[in-house]
Amino acid sequence: MTFKVDLNCDMGESFGAYQMGNDEEILDYVTSANIACGFHAGDASTMRKTVKLALEKNVGIGAHPGLQDLVGFGRRNMALSPQEAYDLVVYQIGALSGFVKAEGGHLQHVKAHGALYNMAVKNGALSEAIAEAVYKIDPELVLFGLSDSEIIKAGKKIGLRTANEVFSDRTYQTDGSLTPRTESNALITDPQIAIDQVVRMVKENKVATVEQTDVALEAETICIHGDGINALAFALQISKSLKESDIHIVKIGDFV
Amino acid sequence: MTFKVDLNCDMGESFGAYQMGNDEEILDYVTSANIACGFHAGDASTMRKTVKLALEKNVGIGAHPGLQDLVGFGRRNMALSPQEAYDLVVYQIGALSGFVKAEGGHLQHVKAHGALYNMAVKNGALSEAIAEAVYKIDPELVLFGLSDSEIIKAGKKIGLRTANEVFSDRTYQTDGSLTPRTESNALITDPQIAIDQVVRMVKENKVATVEQTDVALEAETICIHGDGINALAFALQISKSLKESDIHIVKIGDFV
Amino acid sequence: MTFKVDLNCDMGESFGAYQMGNDEEILDYVTSANIACGFHAGDASTMRKTVKLALEKNVGIGAHPGLQDLVGFGRRNMALSPQEAYDLVVYQIGALSGFVKAEGGHLQHVKAHGALYNMAVKNGALSEAIAEAVYKIDPELVLFGLSDSEIIKAGKKIGLRTANEVFSDRTYQTDGSLTPRTESNALITDPQIAIDQVVRMVKENKVATVEQTDVALEAETICIHGDGINALAFALQISKSLKESDIHIVKIGDFV
Amino acid sequence: MTFKVDLNCDMGESFGAYQMGNDEEILDYVTSANIACGFHAGDASTMRKTVKLALEKNVGIGAHPGLQDLVGFGRRNMALSPQEAYDLVVYQIGALSGFVKAEGGHLQHVKAHGALYNMAVKNGALSEAIAEAVYKIDPELVLFGLSDSEIIKAGKKIGLRTANEVFSDRTYQTDGSLTPRTESNALITDPQIAIDQVVRMVKENKVATVEQTDVALEAETICIHGDGINALAFALQISKSLKESDIHIVKIGDFV
Repeated sequence: MTFKVDLNCDMGESFGAYQMGNDEEILDYVTSANIACGFHAGDASTMRKTVKLALEKNVGIGAHPGLQDLVGFGRRNMALSPQEAYDLVVYQIGALSGFVKAEGGHLQHVKAHGALYNMAVKNGALSEAIAEAVYKIDPELVLFGLSDSEIIKAGKKIGLRTANEVFSDRTYQTDGSLTPRTESNALITDPQIAIDQVVRMVKENKVATVEQTDVALEAETICIHGDGINALAFALQISKSLKESDIHIVKIGDFV
Repeated sequence: MTFKVDLNCDMGESFGAYQMGNDEEILDYVTSANIACGFHAGDASTMRKTVKLALEKNVGIGAHPGLQDLVGFGRRNMALSPQEAYDLVVYQIGALSGFVKAEGGHLQHVKAHGALYNMAVKNGALSEAIAEAVYKIDPELVLFGLSDSEIIKAGKKIGLRTANEVFSDRTYQTDGSLTPRTESNALITDPQIAIDQVVRMVKENKVATVEQTDVALEAETICIHGDGINALAFALQISKSLKESDIHIVKIGDFV
Repeated sequence: MTFKVDLNCDMGESFGAYQMGNDEEILDYVTSANIACGFHAGDASTMRKTVKLALEKNVGIGAHPGLQDLVGFGRRNMALSPQEAYDLVVYQIGALSGFVKAEGGHLQHVKAHGALYNMAVKNGALSEAIAEAVYKIDPELVLFGLSDSEIIKAGKKIGLRTANEVFSDRTYQTDGSLTPRTESNALITDPQIAIDQVVRMVKENKVATVEQTDVALEAETICIHGDGINALAFALQISKSLKESDIHIVKIGDFV
Repeated sequence: MTFKVDLNCDMGESFGAYQMGNDEEILDYVTSANIACGFHAGDASTMRKTVKLALEKNVGIGAHPGLQDLVGFGRRNMALSPQEAYDLVVYQIGALSGFVKAEGGHLQHVKAHGALYNMAVKNGALSEAIAEAVYKIDPELVLFGLSDSEIIKAGKKIGLRTANEVFSDRTYQTDGSLTPRTESNALITDPQIAIDQVVRMVKENKVATVEQTDVALEAETICIHGDGINALAFALQISKSLKESDIHIVKIGDFV
């Protein structure tokens, strides 16, 4: 049996004079890039440069729309109507598509950012609004979302290809949701444990929960973090470990 | 001989709780709509609604990118590099294109807004950057600009269709430029004089200057204002007068 | 016995080219002006003009800080930490104080806007953060809040003067809270019923709830709306009716 | 004879998740801190933290108002009316003053940022608007500006104390202006030359121009850069060299 998984990373998060991330280096390890679209991070110049870099390194390009909350980096939940979510997702995918077209590439996927991603996990109406926005811009796009969450369901329902996303450095609850960051055991800091968790998710479709039980999930794309001191080292390590476990790292658009 | 001209109007300028313009009514008189893209005016919801309205009324849809100066309505000149201009034009055309695609329409043209439009008139490098942005997103788009100005030259040079724009309610200098608004004789307030000026520009390719001489120009599209107390009355009047002068009012994309 | 009440109104909500409200006219009827500070509405020029107008008409000046959500007019709830609330309240009060000082006036009060006001009603930690921000800038300021809500408690606790606010055009629940706008019976549209409710709140410290029972509350300031077609007519009417009921309309800073 | 000079540095330029500068360390070397006020950089939380740090280290606190151009870091010239400049300066000084009051400190000075600073150098009307804004908020404030420029004149004229600012790492033209950054010889990269230039400016009120002639100027405060790899090392070096040259480094508010 052949195992395939996509590695994705948020990037293009610099803004004006403010630098963030190691986009150029991290692009050597991932197969899909989630590029910020100017609402929670990123600006027009950064978008152009990041799209160009991703194309040069043959990495799948994704729009990474977020809430219009630059000072909060799109991480603060906001009471947004489904219509408002639809509108800001269309706007941001469109804006990134402009750069993708101008550079002669094509858009592969869409992944909501931060609070928008998290709110959609359990909110069906919000998820359907996001999925509709993606579908109406281009039905060939792949919609990313937390494995088995509402957004994956909404994507399938409208006819989109979807990518069940898992996290290497986060612990899971018995219902398959991530342990909230406010909990002390939310993060996995040991790289080996993180890698073992990921390999098992890809090969066995299971993850151990904080209650020591297993929960089933699908793992089609793994989220890698691009900033932080050890980001590059971890990207290298996870990439190496996946290959050693006979898991092919493949652009999501090529196998879902 | 058959005369054709396009009537264009800026719209989609509402923002959040702030209403501006009479988009729904003015769309009955114009053939091309320049829709604000969220930088100097407009927001994602307004863009969606305005695109929808324009499609319903069969009006040509244009992106109307402006400077990132919401509080100044994009009217204040800004020291922008050609690269920065390119980036913000790509971003904004892309964003509007998202809504156009989602609604099943197609984008007809691009017209720069306010200070960006004015700065481009005599700035070749800025004009070329704008033209390149338009061309790289879609070479079929029509680029609007002040008649015979640098932006028209830049558009032609890169291979775009262009629309020489004239103004009914502004006076002209001997070099074909508009009299700056800071001058007392900048505006034409008598509707009949405005209409006569327009008809002559379309039929004779000439306009009387403030020096009482004539200057040659091309008139392919006429700018109509959408707000103000008499906007609708004037739109009706100019539309009627053009028809009575055997000038067909036709969407720009259909004849350039 | 003498009855006193303050009439307050949100104003200074115009932004750049966008006009909102009838500030100049409504200032003839109210005793306290809540001036937007640039986050949810308003801009520096509008703040200057509104402060000046309020001083000319001898109306008490208040800062009206809101969430940093211009496109949502500060009406969308947002997951804000108490520290973030403290910071944005200090910033906005400070900004308005700049104009008040420059014009030679003094700041009378602070009223949180929209979602920030509503979130504080039942959130003690958020209310304490807002109260602390107000107190640390100037312990003489009057803090506005929904009558008997958490923000009034927080204000009293830290040592501020407070203003229990009531609404003429909203219905009340049995716990003294406002009926949410999502309910069909949230608004009172009959001006006479609105006025009777207000007079009773001021004179008897009671209001009839949607369950037809009475609930006790204090009424030190009444919120008047400044926009809408009938805003001025209603302001005139309520002002007249209060006087006829022997209720003196007095600036809040003069009697609490 | 006793020589005194102030050392100032821009700080508080972080924004949300974006970090910039080494504020905590650089505060050990400077006597005046120019704190960004949220328009070109900085946010409410950063302002609070930076004010607190400056107070702890007994550094003079200044407001550093800039153009409303976050993505351009306030560095792009903009066609601003004097009234608009006045308004944005009042707003930003006010906002920072809020934090200064809340922390129990007092505001020492105001220095315009980036393009606003540069535009004011030769623009008398703009300079007078800025000086008026500062004066009307607090006539005790010290106004910073390029040595002998229009803003210094405007400050003196209205009755403010002023601080003639010089730059250690920039070359000068024969008219006393800075060589524009677009010129190849604009920057001094050799730390020793930079220090020698500064010492001479303070002690002899002269600087060598790019034409090898001398031009007279006053040097009351020296601008130090807070970011860049060598910022801290240079701050230490200049501080040491000034002391060795019998120049006392003193907070500007204490000697002008």
